[in-house]
Amino acid sequence: MKEYIYLNGSILPAQDARIHVSDLALIRGYGIFDFFRAIDGKPIFIEDHLDRFENSARLMALPIPESRDKLREIILEIIRLHPMPLLGIKMILTGGFSVDGYTPAAESNLIVMGKPFEFKPADVGMKLMSMEYRREIPEIKTLNYIVPIRALAKMKASGADDVLYHLNGNISESSRSNIFIIKNERIITPVDGALFGVTRKHVLNFAKKYFVVEERDISLQEYFEADEVFTTGSTKRIVAITQTDNHVFSEGKVGKITKKLQELFLDYEKLY
Amino acid sequence: MKEYIYLNGSILPAQDARIHVSDLALIRGYGIFDFFRAIDGKPIFIEDHLDRFENSARLMALPIPESRDKLREIILEIIRLHPMPLLGIKMILTGGFSVDGYTPAAESNLIVMGKPFEFKPADVGMKLMSMEYRREIPEIKTLNYIVPIRALAKMKASGADDVLYHLNGNISESSRSNIFIIKNERIITPVDGALFGVTRKHVLNFAKKYFVVEERDISLQEYFEADEVFTTGSTKRIVAITQTDNHVFSEGKVGKITKKLQELFLDYEKLY
Repeated sequence: MKEYIYLNGSILPAQDARIHVSDLALIRGYGIFDFFRAIDGKPIFIEDHLDRFENSARLMALPIPESRDKLREIILEIIRLHPMPLLGIKMILTGGFSVDGYTPAAESNLIVMGKPFEFKPADVGMKLMSMEYRREIPEIKTLNYIVPIRALAKMKASGADDVLYHLNGNISESSRSNIFIIKNERIITPVDGALFGVTRKHVLNFAKKYFVVEERDISLQEYFEADEVFTTGSTKRIVAITQTDNHVFSEGKVGKITKKLQELFLDYEKLY
Repeated sequence: MKEYIYLNGSILPAQDARIHVSDLALIRGYGIFDFFRAIDGKPIFIEDHLDRFENSARLMALPIPESRDKLREIILEIIRLHPMPLLGIKMILTGGFSVDGYTPAAESNLIVMGKPFEFKPADVGMKLMSMEYRREIPEIKTLNYIVPIRALAKMKASGADDVLYHLNGNISESSRSNIFIIKNERIITPVDGALFGVTRKHVLNFAKKYFVVEERDISLQEYFEADEVFTTGSTKRIVAITQTDNHVFSEGKVGKITKKLQELFLDYEKLY
């Protein structure tokens, strides 16, 4: 399949989507992004992702060069050009071509790309490696992934699939997904230090019909004492965490409540 | 003057130096850089900057695609192509064209560019705005400047020229330069949380012949009680800090010892 990328007003064959090296994301890391899925051509939770993208842009004082309607049209065109059962769509907004190499330009650069991807199987758990870290501006989906990418080798050496951030005794999130714990049939997820994930929001939304749900601080100790742990994200839906460091959760299997939530989520997502 | 940029093996007219949008600095902020000056065609402290660039690359597990000798040749060619009395040279190394949008590629992308610049006049002081922050990995010259760039509007509104980072009561550095205080003719600069600046190193090197020099923690209180404050960097040499927030140092003028150091530094730099 031929791939296409939207760049600053044009949709180009993917290999031609090149940007001048004075872009402020490239030289100073200044930019934001968002990511979501299209299933059989239908974008999932697109308005939530546009909301968050606009919010990230506002918090970074980056003007979005297209209206929301026009941006939605671009996304739908990218989806149309990539007829796949499962497509990941990424929007990137950067500080533009900075004149002095530091100050954001009046016009941001906007990129929209589509790439096929696969979900992890829902019946397999992930293993996390805990690390002392908190994203600098957790409420913004910035481009800065230096610390977790730098930890990739250590993570792989320890057999982990991803990381668990904690700071000052409290957990916050994984590198690209939110964290929930289940204790005595209560479902608990952190607020401070975590990105407001779109899947997180929808899980909270339907889980509260079936369970007691709490959004509050979770200490590292409470985390390790959980009955079940799971992670949520646009590339994952709901995936069980069956191990963190040397501690195994729910006997290394997908826990009972996690499994229930996975089933409920699939039904819930179909309504969108 | 026509400008040129080195990009992955080719020297191109500056406007043609475009890179594919899958570069890992652009999509995940993963990269490092270094910056130094050439005066009348002569690169200043180039070996120090190559040392630091190699060290940053090693700490980020980024292979440099050229040998040190070849990189030096590229830099000299960029200098030759921009015959200016004062040229700033920037080398950028990124995680390459990542296949999965997260893991660094086997080959990094390397960019070398030259741009004319001007020094700030040495007889004028700068004003800083204090902010609670510390770079995530202070010992590496990463591309991540999200926090200080985001603070630009607030900084300008307060009439400041740059920021002073402090965390847990201790100061560390400015956004792109090191900080020194002078108290009772002692010259003191922080170690923890600060980049090992090349100008910083050389200032320490010659200042110790004339003054007592200390590298140690400096509390915010000690900072505000200093007799004089100055900042050092490749784009600045030595520049007085005459104000931070509402506090004025050395009556708003370049202090006596700062002035002496500025003169000594000009002589010292000529020997290189």
